[in-house]
Amino acid sequence: MTEPTASEHRRAATPEERSERGGEAGVTDVSTPGRVAEPGEGITVDELQLAARNHGLPLEALRYDVTPVGLHYLLVHYDIPAVDPDSWRLRIGGHVERPLALSLGDLSERPRVTQRVTMECAGNGRARLAPRPVSQPWLVEAVGTAEWTGTPLAPLLAEAGLGQGAVDVVFTGADHGIERGVEQDYERALPFADALGEDLLLAYEMNGAPLPVQHGFPLRLIAPGWYGMAHVKWLRDITVLDREFDGFQNAVAYRLRQQPEDAGEPVTRIEPRALLIPPGFPDFMSRIRIVPAGQCTLEGRAWSGYGPVTAVELTVDDGQSWTRAELGAPEHPYAWQHFAVDWPATTGRHLLSARATDATGRVQPVQQPWNRGGFANNLVQRVDVVVA
Amino acid sequence: MTEPTASEHRRAATPEERSERGGEAGVTDVSTPGRVAEPGEGITVDELQLAARNHGLPLEALRYDVTPVGLHYLLVHYDIPAVDPDSWRLRIGGHVERPLALSLGDLSERPRVTQRVTMECAGNGRARLAPRPVSQPWLVEAVGTAEWTGTPLAPLLAEAGLGQGAVDVVFTGADHGIERGVEQDYERALPFADALGEDLLLAYEMNGAPLPVQHGFPLRLIAPGWYGMAHVKWLRDITVLDREFDGFQNAVAYRLRQQPEDAGEPVTRIEPRALLIPPGFPDFMSRIRIVPAGQCTLEGRAWSGYGPVTAVELTVDDGQSWTRAELGAPEHPYAWQHFAVDWPATTGRHLLSARATDATGRVQPVQQPWNRGGFANNLVQRVDVVVA
Repeated sequence: MTEPTASEHRRAATPEERSERGGEAGVTDVSTPGRVAEPGEGITVDELQLAARNHGLPLEALRYDVTPVGLHYLLVHYDIPAVDPDSWRLRIGGHVERPLALSLGDLSERPRVTQRVTMECAGNGRARLAPRPVSQPWLVEAVGTAEWTGTPLAPLLAEAGLGQGAVDVVFTGADHGIERGVEQDYERALPFADALGEDLLLAYEMNGAPLPVQHGFPLRLIAPGWYGMAHVKWLRDITVLDREFDGFQNAVAYRLRQQPEDAGEPVTRIEPRALLIPPGFPDFMSRIRIVPAGQCTLEGRAWSGYGPVTAVELTVDDGQSWTRAELGAPEHPYAWQHFAVDWPATTGRHLLSARATDATGRVQPVQQPWNRGGFANNLVQRVDVVVA
Repeated sequence: MTEPTASEHRRAATPEERSERGGEAGVTDVSTPGRVAEPGEGITVDELQLAARNHGLPLEALRYDVTPVGLHYLLVHYDIPAVDPDSWRLRIGGHVERPLALSLGDLSERPRVTQRVTMECAGNGRARLAPRPVSQPWLVEAVGTAEWTGTPLAPLLAEAGLGQGAVDVVFTGADHGIERGVEQDYERALPFADALGEDLLLAYEMNGAPLPVQHGFPLRLIAPGWYGMAHVKWLRDITVLDREFDGFQNAVAYRLRQQPEDAGEPVTRIEPRALLIPPGFPDFMSRIRIVPAGQCTLEGRAWSGYGPVTAVELTVDDGQSWTRAELGAPEHPYAWQHFAVDWPATTGRHLLSARATDATGRVQPVQQPWNRGGFANNLVQRVDVVVA
């Protein structure tokens, strides 16, 4: 049994290493502390740079049960890495009895499972918050549903032989960058009990084709029900720890805090949300919708990482009254459900929202839930419609 | 021979039609006039909405000769339409002797051609301009190169029998919306002589697979060398006119103007541009690059819609000195060319740029070329690098 050690990829470069590469001049300058925007402050060029490379689901694409590749939301923390699939190996090590190194061929010979999973970025909705946390500026569109194919994780962990007293399991990707002054490969841990869940997959296909490079080729973790930060892409190391993981993405980044100095609670599963397929057609610049007066069917999708959605309600008067929608059955336990409601659209301007309730009783709020990272914020969407 | 008539899809709804659908209340309010941002004005929520749905090429993906689906830049003017491929027909009509209606099957039986084409949005670079035209806020990343497969357009026009005195050829898509108060299906005309070019394709495949829905399924025009606005997606009508087309996207939108009241010049072919693959690795929020000191190869891609790129020069000191890069041959006449130059990276902060010159003598400017739409602006990219 090997003792877990701090991975070479799990920390910032040491001062000695920086010195070896020619001094520290300016390196610490590239990262700025996290902050929230000033009142009235427009979106910054830094935020726009992230919005231009990462992208959301165009909301009309909620019409598809399974999101076509290229329309599923995408968040890349650093750069998309170029991984050579032939020399690539998945290593399973740390607090285990028999460390493993598996090729793509090895993985493809194991049991093959396909799961339909709705995935959402933990920062979805951030740019609508007031004050606005300055980071990837999602509005409401950081979501998608895909068919992920791969092999279950739990049997592989069993094969490696888990040591007694395992606490966390760390998933390390090949995505390299610096964030808030910490140089790192992107990596996230799951609590041991969650990592052993029978629904976790090591996925090598998306929608029936090899993983697109931007979605983690050659392999990514799929952790159904969790926000996207847990589904580590370009996966290359799984490390079992006999202590709590203190890496950046768990201990610093993805935490719910009111003040910068708070320890904060970890971001985990997806809070319930409903999104409408915007009805009618849009104005190019404002994206306000034009809907012909008369009978109209409002449709959309709703999901929760805590269980099935049990109710969706709609308002066409900005929350003054709510109508219960017809809700599709949860045919796939981790995929969004369809909802629909008829609306006799009358001339004038309307603000439309849908709100979801899940089997655990969680209800989408109509007042913003705020934290400094803008995480797990499931404030209802508002769709601005002119009926004419 | 049928007389060309104004297409039912080529104009705003009439007041009578608006009245029939229940009055005009608010419809004209959804569009605002074009404008440029105030000095110091941050990116607006309207611009962010566009940035969150449309997306650029993540610059590290310049490493691929052919851009994988999902990484190619994408601009959708209104909504991605849902087109039923079975009932869909391409109609060729207007000022022709024999109007045609062709199914996907009909098109697939015709000569099949594949072309590698670099496509760029005419608004690329807009959000870096000062003052900033308020529209889709591209920085420098609105580009991609794909292998498009389809059938040449010119033989189909010949088969339809062009009437004498043909002036413009209009391409109409199924993408429906309102823009600056004008309700429309997206459509653009090419001058007759350009539409007859032997390099124009009606494409039904991208990178060897059926067109992704967001790239125009089931059929789009490919007009190699032209900015993206000419490559009409979700194509369903080709209309030959014996007069100049006065539709919105030609007469109003895509024009180079200094003042709102200018008639302006039409936006046409792609101005030369070079983009660097950002070296090293990024900071998450600022996207500033960290590069280890020592020998480094700077690489990128360069293209022009007017002919091959004949030179690329690089600066590592924000334009004080320029070095000639090694430039790949133009193996595909409409695809970008690779360039590379060795750089002995020394500690400190550097601003890197590349500039392209093409066979017609056009050179990328280091001072911004400005117009109110922010079109055809090929100001050199600036890559902010810390060598450590």
